[in-house]
Amino acid sequence: MTNPDLATLLNREQAQEELFDLLRIPSVSADPAYKAEVVRAAEWLQRKLSTLGFTARVDQTPGHPLVYAERLTDPAQPTVLIYGHYDVQPEAPLEEWLTPPFEPTVRDGRIYARGSTDDKGQAFAHVKGVELLLSQGELPVNVKFLLEGEEEIGSPSIIPYLQAHKDELKADVIVISDGSRFAPDVPTITYGVRGLSYVEIHVQGANRDLHSGSYGGAAPNPINALCEIIARLKDEQGRVTIPGFYDGVEELTEQERAMWASLPHSDEEFAASIGVPALPGEEGYSVLERIWGRPTLDVNGIWGGYQGEGSKTVIAAKAGAKVSMRLVPGQDPDRITQLIKEYVPQIAPAGVKAEVRGHHGGQPVKFKTDSPAIQAANRALHRVYGRDAVFARTGGSIPIVAAFSDILKTEVLFVDFGLNEDAPHSPNESFALQDYHNGILTSAYLLQELAQSS
Amino acid sequence: MTNPDLATLLNREQAQEELFDLLRIPSVSADPAYKAEVVRAAEWLQRKLSTLGFTARVDQTPGHPLVYAERLTDPAQPTVLIYGHYDVQPEAPLEEWLTPPFEPTVRDGRIYARGSTDDKGQAFAHVKGVELLLSQGELPVNVKFLLEGEEEIGSPSIIPYLQAHKDELKADVIVISDGSRFAPDVPTITYGVRGLSYVEIHVQGANRDLHSGSYGGAAPNPINALCEIIARLKDEQGRVTIPGFYDGVEELTEQERAMWASLPHSDEEFAASIGVPALPGEEGYSVLERIWGRPTLDVNGIWGGYQGEGSKTVIAAKAGAKVSMRLVPGQDPDRITQLIKEYVPQIAPAGVKAEVRGHHGGQPVKFKTDSPAIQAANRALHRVYGRDAVFARTGGSIPIVAAFSDILKTEVLFVDFGLNEDAPHSPNESFALQDYHNGILTSAYLLQELAQSS
Repeated sequence: MTNPDLATLLNREQAQEELFDLLRIPSVSADPAYKAEVVRAAEWLQRKLSTLGFTARVDQTPGHPLVYAERLTDPAQPTVLIYGHYDVQPEAPLEEWLTPPFEPTVRDGRIYARGSTDDKGQAFAHVKGVELLLSQGELPVNVKFLLEGEEEIGSPSIIPYLQAHKDELKADVIVISDGSRFAPDVPTITYGVRGLSYVEIHVQGANRDLHSGSYGGAAPNPINALCEIIARLKDEQGRVTIPGFYDGVEELTEQERAMWASLPHSDEEFAASIGVPALPGEEGYSVLERIWGRPTLDVNGIWGGYQGEGSKTVIAAKAGAKVSMRLVPGQDPDRITQLIKEYVPQIAPAGVKAEVRGHHGGQPVKFKTDSPAIQAANRALHRVYGRDAVFARTGGSIPIVAAFSDILKTEVLFVDFGLNEDAPHSPNESFALQDYHNGILTSAYLLQELAQSS
Repeated sequence: MTNPDLATLLNREQAQEELFDLLRIPSVSADPAYKAEVVRAAEWLQRKLSTLGFTARVDQTPGHPLVYAERLTDPAQPTVLIYGHYDVQPEAPLEEWLTPPFEPTVRDGRIYARGSTDDKGQAFAHVKGVELLLSQGELPVNVKFLLEGEEEIGSPSIIPYLQAHKDELKADVIVISDGSRFAPDVPTITYGVRGLSYVEIHVQGANRDLHSGSYGGAAPNPINALCEIIARLKDEQGRVTIPGFYDGVEELTEQERAMWASLPHSDEEFAASIGVPALPGEEGYSVLERIWGRPTLDVNGIWGGYQGEGSKTVIAAKAGAKVSMRLVPGQDPDRITQLIKEYVPQIAPAGVKAEVRGHHGGQPVKFKTDSPAIQAANRALHRVYGRDAVFARTGGSIPIVAAFSDILKTEVLFVDFGLNEDAPHSPNESFALQDYHNGILTSAYLLQELAQSS
């Protein structure tokens, strides 16, 4: 199926060894304790790209650094900007990892390591794809790499960076591989991502922890109160109750609903794959529609009171929760964050003080499915998988995508190499070796196809 | 006011030094890491009581040991069994302590240390009271001490112990000082304690943590589910919704309601003392009635998902909470535990598995307020405080009190030396030096009065 010369030229052992070196660096952006490791990962990528003849540098930001590299071959040829991120999610809960998160291990043809699929493995596949083409000669297009270290914390520094480097980053298309294909044998082009509003809810009760015997029945309990608040954020139909939350939401088109309904998907298999008996959600929408095209709200973490062994009869002074809302076209993260900030204090039970602190957000985005770039991507995928790609959206959020279209005015092309079963953000995150290799080939073919599509 | 000869005989410096030695032992019964320290506290008390001429020993149990000591002077005199506990609550949250929990410190006339009031300080006051009487001659009554090391974890070993030592523990009255007086200038005799049912709720969602983008809207979220379950356990009127929860509850008598209504109490001051704007609770009952005479439910701890710094967009696989229910006469802890075990799975949202694990319980108890022992206690308190005691109940639970009346068939006398503001179970738990000294005197006078009351 695949173009033999490139496929046979690929040195799979070396490609694996190099990725392993990158995966061994615990570049967790959310935890200040790992700050130096994030820098180490950036410098590692800069060195690698320099050896490929790129002008590569590590640019400082108020937070974690960005890696920028370019190899400009022919002004007549299109320019492709490849975006990815080298930071990773925290490893917690560590005890659930079968092998250490930062000691990559191959089991059953899969690489197990934090960041293996999200996004070191997928981003580095493009670096190797470029290397593969270079082993045959010059690149058919001008290539720029922008690799950031803050994606998992909402990319706080990249927007000012894009504004400051607008001209330097000019490109005809931006390629991103930071998500999942629809299914193992189904090459996928993603034309939309959900947005995000991530907040923390903090509830304060008494000015100190209280004995639940001496005060129980009269003192406000911030944990009970927090639970009531969270319970009130969604109704029996699985809809978010925040007033104005659904204002402006773009309804799914009949064409989209039909296209997605035709995809090989089984609710039963989907539920079985995560080991649950049911898939609760917003009434009136299919599972794919709820994940790709509808907004939702999930608590990502909660804490309060005594969590240790045994029992402690205490009424805690405070409790808190991390809450994320996935947004769709028509919703603005800042507006949604403002809405929940106003709503939570209104639904807080008597006796407690509840406040919402905004964390970060990301704009929802949707692209046209008939552009030349998307057609080129489809041809590249066809050369690897021997079939046309399906057009999907993703429930995930890539906060900077909106910034790319707003600031760089450039079309973004999502070509995903991973799978949901890779379990990004979970213990035992993995990336199939086969998908890594196909990613490298797809990247190389895509650059060739984009050259011809111009 | 107080009997000068005893009051002047009391060596306050020495009394403080000895209590400090005991408070320095971190005898946390809930945490296995402190097992050896619990034993150390038991041995310390045994040595002290031996020096006072008691036959004292440390008795092993399947859990933490008990200290038993007796000094029998005259079979014709009544026998008083003094119960207390030398184990303490966990120190968490450690960062909120102004001074180390196990390094007792005096500030503004108060001893700050974990266990200072609950119950090392109050129990040791009786040891010093006995020592004070001995400094004048023989004890007027036969005295037995039973000091346990598992009170804060529900006294799992004491019931079999009481059954095995029934005869040895025979007494005319059991004295317990493990609670709070009604107010600083108000000597208090407590004639009832609430019972307790302590459980853990565990909710399981998917078989692993999930990316909240790729699954949000379709995958069950165990934290949201746990919050819904907890929110459903109480209604808008502050009543527990568990079917059958209120069956058999003894209503308060008009006399009790009148007696408590006459006590010097202000909801405003009570709320201000814990820094809250309101005192939510069961409608139709005063604050004192809700704490002393009505059952309630409080979440004591909750956990799930990502609690670290920054943000993690994850749908956790599981979540849990510790929940305690305070019970009143007419409610049985085992029955209540069974009721919540049956109810929680019924109200769990679709897609998750919810189960309740029983922790421990305690029977609610109420005594008559006109016995000779209670009158003797009132006279003793009058000698210290110059006024009659008020008759109150406590919202707390002393699980073994029921066992005392059931197994030893002996009246229990609660004479509390502490105050709610001592903040037992909280960071910066404290005990006023004045209350400690008054406790020692009260103990000595009580033994004298009990001798005359026989």
